[in-house]
Amino acid sequence: MQIGVVGLGKMGYNLALNLRNHGHVVVAYDVQSAPVASISLEKNIQGAADPAGLCAALQDRKILWLMVPSGAPVDETIERLLPYLSSGDIIIDGGNSHYKDSKRRHATLKEKQVEFLDCGTSGGMSGAFSGACAMVGGDASVFAYCESIFKDICIEGGYRYCGASGSGHFAKMVHNGIEYGMMQSIAEGFELMERSDYSFDFEQIARLWDRGSVIRGWLMELTGDAFSKDPQLSSIRGIMHSSGEGKWTVETALELGVPTPVIALSLLMRQRSLQEDTFSGKVVAALRNEFGGHAVEKKV
Amino acid sequence: MQIGVVGLGKMGYNLALNLRNHGHVVVAYDVQSAPVASISLEKNIQGAADPAGLCAALQDRKILWLMVPSGAPVDETIERLLPYLSSGDIIIDGGNSHYKDSKRRHATLKEKQVEFLDCGTSGGMSGAFSGACAMVGGDASVFAYCESIFKDICIEGGYRYCGASGSGHFAKMVHNGIEYGMMQSIAEGFELMERSDYSFDFEQIARLWDRGSVIRGWLMELTGDAFSKDPQLSSIRGIMHSSGEGKWTVETALELGVPTPVIALSLLMRQRSLQEDTFSGKVVAALRNEFGGHAVEKKV
Repeated sequence: MQIGVVGLGKMGYNLALNLRNHGHVVVAYDVQSAPVASISLEKNIQGAADPAGLCAALQDRKILWLMVPSGAPVDETIERLLPYLSSGDIIIDGGNSHYKDSKRRHATLKEKQVEFLDCGTSGGMSGAFSGACAMVGGDASVFAYCESIFKDICIEGGYRYCGASGSGHFAKMVHNGIEYGMMQSIAEGFELMERSDYSFDFEQIARLWDRGSVIRGWLMELTGDAFSKDPQLSSIRGIMHSSGEGKWTVETALELGVPTPVIALSLLMRQRSLQEDTFSGKVVAALRNEFGGHAVEKKV
Repeated sequence: MQIGVVGLGKMGYNLALNLRNHGHVVVAYDVQSAPVASISLEKNIQGAADPAGLCAALQDRKILWLMVPSGAPVDETIERLLPYLSSGDIIIDGGNSHYKDSKRRHATLKEKQVEFLDCGTSGGMSGAFSGACAMVGGDASVFAYCESIFKDICIEGGYRYCGASGSGHFAKMVHNGIEYGMMQSIAEGFELMERSDYSFDFEQIARLWDRGSVIRGWLMELTGDAFSKDPQLSSIRGIMHSSGEGKWTVETALELGVPTPVIALSLLMRQRSLQEDTFSGKVVAALRNEFGGHAVEKKV
């Protein structure tokens, strides 16, 4: 099929190549001109200078795959595309949008007869390039029209229609929440080994655990890869940034009254990692000093 | 090689078959006579009626693989075997023993010139039968003598010498602690989907997440298997038993002063699941009533 890809960051760029490698005709656009120049000059994919040019290059029943940062950038992108869209055209949001935003966009676009699918895309950059995992929500008929795209860009068995609008991004949100907990669990286990009296080879332990153990999987493979590059991870700091989905998972859990303590705590540990020192720590230290005369560590 | 297998539970029985299928000569013994009869009559593996018979059937430099419940049963088994062991004989504890017990047994047996390896064995029953994952601690020379056994019973790349005595069971303990956290994370994610407004097909979501997603792995495969048998898990209760390794992980973390909050909380959630009601819940409900007149739910 012919597909317009909007957003040529790490994921979008690789996805455009993936689509092209599967015989789709890709027209690529980004608000930055550099990746457009790169993909057209180095990868022989048609680039567009602006939304007008992008849409002009697409045949009727245009399909536009958005791979832009969640929140305002998605709304802005849709606003800039809308003047060039007609009834029946399809926007697929392949980014990590909040499922409530996706439901809202689906409803708003429906009024303009523009179709909207929310697609949670997992598998990282390598997946975007050579076989992703796609969780798709929206109208079943629109999914059916686009199914060959998902089939081509995903690993075998790696795409699924999840249900009504928002369900794809809801599933992806939960997937990322689970990911937070799994990563924190793995990390705590390695810290315990690191602080033990034994001299474990962390790369070898991770490689071993990826061979036949109960906790084998891609995250364990990546753990082995990370330790292979830096056996003690001594070159990096333990600061754990996050991009929102874990927070959304916990907010959604609170809203629905579903206890997700381990996912929530994994999020809190990421937030804690951003702090050099804590005010709560000062309060506890001061209180121990007040009631028991316990020594506090003075700031230097 | 010739190996005595002691303990024919789910893991030991399958391991004995695995060893035999790889050309080793197995003599099998269990305190219960039924599994000994089963393995000798149905599987054509030589059974022994008691430790004396078991050891009499083994050639010099006897190798005994123990697969019995952790704690006292391991000590009792060793005590019953010791009269029939000679200098250089080797005991491999393939169960989930506490690493401190393994260190102690290694030291005690060393005084009697009996060798001891601690082997954490992962992969479940299917792994025990067709390819396990083994984390081995003890003397390097003893490991080297037994290496062909581990090589044969494990999946390719699925065994490793981890270091000094206790390191194998330490690694297995941490593995299981990580497993607690990963399982709790997966479980919380599915509960959030179950409580959402969407109608997710849990089996299909698990199958999807095992195909190209970041959280793919054996636990996700097993999640799909579980939902395939019972789409809403409506036939089982959410009571999460445990067999000790998670608790040991948290105890060890406390002892070493290593914060492992998510593994610890996963353990606590298992303990909470064993309670029908909680006394702490009564205290909070009573206090809310005391200070704010908030209604309490009366016991019927």
